[in-house]
Amino acid sequence: MTDNNSAALPIRGARILIAGAASLVGSHTADALLAAGAGEVVLLDNYAFGTPEAIAHLKDNPRVRLVKGDVMRLPDLLAATHGLDGVLMLAAYMTLGFSQTPWEAVDVNIRGVQNMLEACRVNGVRKVVFASSNAVYGYGPGVSGALLEQGPFHSAGAPPAAVLYGASKIIGEQLCRQFFQKYGLRYLVLRYSTVYGERQHYRAANALYIMETYDKVRRGERPVLPGDGSETKHFVNVADVARANCAAFESTACDVAVNVSGPEPVTLAELVQMVLDYCESDLTPETRPDPPGTVRLTSGGAFHIPHQLAGELIGWQPQIGMKEGIRRLLAWREAQESVAAGRG
Amino acid sequence: MTDNNSAALPIRGARILIAGAASLVGSHTADALLAAGAGEVVLLDNYAFGTPEAIAHLKDNPRVRLVKGDVMRLPDLLAATHGLDGVLMLAAYMTLGFSQTPWEAVDVNIRGVQNMLEACRVNGVRKVVFASSNAVYGYGPGVSGALLEQGPFHSAGAPPAAVLYGASKIIGEQLCRQFFQKYGLRYLVLRYSTVYGERQHYRAANALYIMETYDKVRRGERPVLPGDGSETKHFVNVADVARANCAAFESTACDVAVNVSGPEPVTLAELVQMVLDYCESDLTPETRPDPPGTVRLTSGGAFHIPHQLAGELIGWQPQIGMKEGIRRLLAWREAQESVAAGRG
Repeated sequence: MTDNNSAALPIRGARILIAGAASLVGSHTADALLAAGAGEVVLLDNYAFGTPEAIAHLKDNPRVRLVKGDVMRLPDLLAATHGLDGVLMLAAYMTLGFSQTPWEAVDVNIRGVQNMLEACRVNGVRKVVFASSNAVYGYGPGVSGALLEQGPFHSAGAPPAAVLYGASKIIGEQLCRQFFQKYGLRYLVLRYSTVYGERQHYRAANALYIMETYDKVRRGERPVLPGDGSETKHFVNVADVARANCAAFESTACDVAVNVSGPEPVTLAELVQMVLDYCESDLTPETRPDPPGTVRLTSGGAFHIPHQLAGELIGWQPQIGMKEGIRRLLAWREAQESVAAGRG
Repeated sequence: MTDNNSAALPIRGARILIAGAASLVGSHTADALLAAGAGEVVLLDNYAFGTPEAIAHLKDNPRVRLVKGDVMRLPDLLAATHGLDGVLMLAAYMTLGFSQTPWEAVDVNIRGVQNMLEACRVNGVRKVVFASSNAVYGYGPGVSGALLEQGPFHSAGAPPAAVLYGASKIIGEQLCRQFFQKYGLRYLVLRYSTVYGERQHYRAANALYIMETYDKVRRGERPVLPGDGSETKHFVNVADVARANCAAFESTACDVAVNVSGPEPVTLAELVQMVLDYCESDLTPETRPDPPGTVRLTSGGAFHIPHQLAGELIGWQPQIGMKEGIRRLLAWREAQESVAAGRG
C-alpha cells in the first residue's frame, strides 16, 4: 500500500534501477536496496568503466536483473525503466573523463541525464535520485569555509576539465528540476563528497590518494604529502552513501539538493597518519612542496561540507568516521590481495 | 603580412566566419568587419531563429558569402571554415530556448560549440571569438555589486532554464580553454551584457521591454514598471558589441574572458523615462508590484558590469549611452513602420 501522492518511495517491494550500477556506489547501493527488501533491483551499465566484478556477488540473486545498456541510447532506457518505481542515476564521467574524452563526458553527463529523465517521465517512474557532487561548489580559492547547499559555483583559475565536470553536474540537477516543474517527475539530488570504500576503483583522484599512500607504506617507502599537508579533503564512506541513496527514495523530500559528506573533513596530513597507524608503521611522511605553477583541484584553504540539511530533510547522517573507513578499505584491499595470491 | 605567432588577427584582408550571422549581433558585426576591410565574411546560419531580412542588405556584397549550415552538423562546419582565418561563434539558444526546447538548446550551446571548435582546429583557424554572456554570473540575490570577470556563478532560487543557460555558457567558455590548452587554438571570450539596438528581434526578454514600453506609450497607454522600478539592467548597444568583436580579433589578447557592457547600468524607472522623453509624452509610469511568488531573472538589488578589463586587454570601451541608443533603436523602429505602411 503506497501513497502515490507522496514523494516517498518505500523500498520494501519497490522495483528500482541503478544506472551506472557496476561501480563503487552502485554495487553498495544494490546491496543496501536488497537488504531493505526491494522487490527488484535492475543493474544497468554499459561497462565502459564499470566492471562485472563489482556486481559479481549479485548476479545469481533472484531479485536482481542485469541489463547492459547505455544512457546515450534512449530506447535502452525506455525498455529498462518500464514498470519501475525508482531510478538512481549514477552514470557519469568525472573530471578525468572531461580531460581525456570530453565529447563522451558531455554526452553522458548532460544528454545521458536528459535521456534518463525522459525515460522516467514516459514510464511514470515515481522518484529519481540524482547523484550530484560537491563539484557544484567549484574549485579554486573561492571554495572555503562551509560549502552550504545555497552556495555559488567558483571556477576562477581552475582547470577546464574540473570546471566542465562541475558545470555538467549543475546542468544535471537543473534538468531534474525542469522535468519536475514541467511534468511532475519527482526527484531528489544528493551531492556526494569524495566517496571511498571497499571495491574502490582507480579513477577518482582524491580517493586514489589513500590507496597510493598505502601501497607506498607497504613497500617501506615514506608516503608523500603534497603541499604542506594542510589541504582539506572531505570524504564520505560508500556505505554511508548507499544509506543516503536509500533514505532519498524513502523520504518525502522532493525537488531539493542536499550534501552527503562524512562526519568530518580531514587534512592530508591526518589522512596519511591514519594509513601509517593502520599499517603500524614508524615511517614519517615526506613533505613535497608543489612545484611552481602546479594547479590543484582544491584550494589549500580549509573547507568543510555540512550535511545538516540531509539530516533534516531525509533523516540521514554519516556513521563511519575516517579512521574506521580506512580500516575497512585497507582490510578489504588486503583480503583481495590474499585471494589474488591464492592464499584466500 | 601577418605574424602567425601572434594571437592578433588583423581584420584587413582576413576571411572571417560568423556562426549565427542572421541576427542582431551577427548582422552588425558583418557590417563592421566589412567596413574594417575584411577580405571575406562568411555568414553561416540555419535560420532557426535568424532571418534572411537581418542580412538582406549584405547578400550582394562581393566580399560576403552566405552559407546555410547547422552547428550540429560537423561536416557543415568543416566545409564552411576551410581556409578561414577567424570565427565568431554567436549561434546559441537563450533562456527562453532552455525553457521551451531544452534538448535543442543543450545541443547547440554545448555540442554546437564543441563542433565549431573542432572544425576550427582541423582547419587551422587562427582565432575564435566566443560570444558568452553575463549569465555566467548567474541569477538571484547573490548577483549584486560589481560583476567582475573572476566572480562565481550564482543559481540559488533561479528558474531552471536560466541556470541551464548560464551553465551552458560556462561550459562553452571552458571548451574554448580546453581546445586552447590541448591544441593551441587561440580564442577570446566576450561576455555580452543585454544587447539591444537596430534590427532588434523579439526573443530577448530584457531588450524586449524597451519595445513593449514604446508600443504602449505610442498607443497612449501608461507604461508599466515591474516591481518598484528600481531593478537594475545593464544594456550594451549592438554597435558597441560589433566594435568589441572586431577588437577581439585584432587584439593580441588570448585565453581570457572580458565583460562587454554599456557605459552605465540603468534602473527600469530611468529606462521608461527615456522612452517617454523620446516620445515627448506626458504619461507617467504605472508601478505594478510583482504578484506574490513572482520569480524574476535578476535580483531587485543594484549590480553593474564593469568593462575595464576589456579596455585593458582589447582596447575597447562602449561609446553609446542609453539615451542615444534608445533614440537610434526607436528611430529605426519608426522608419521600419513607415516602410511597412508604404510611406517610406
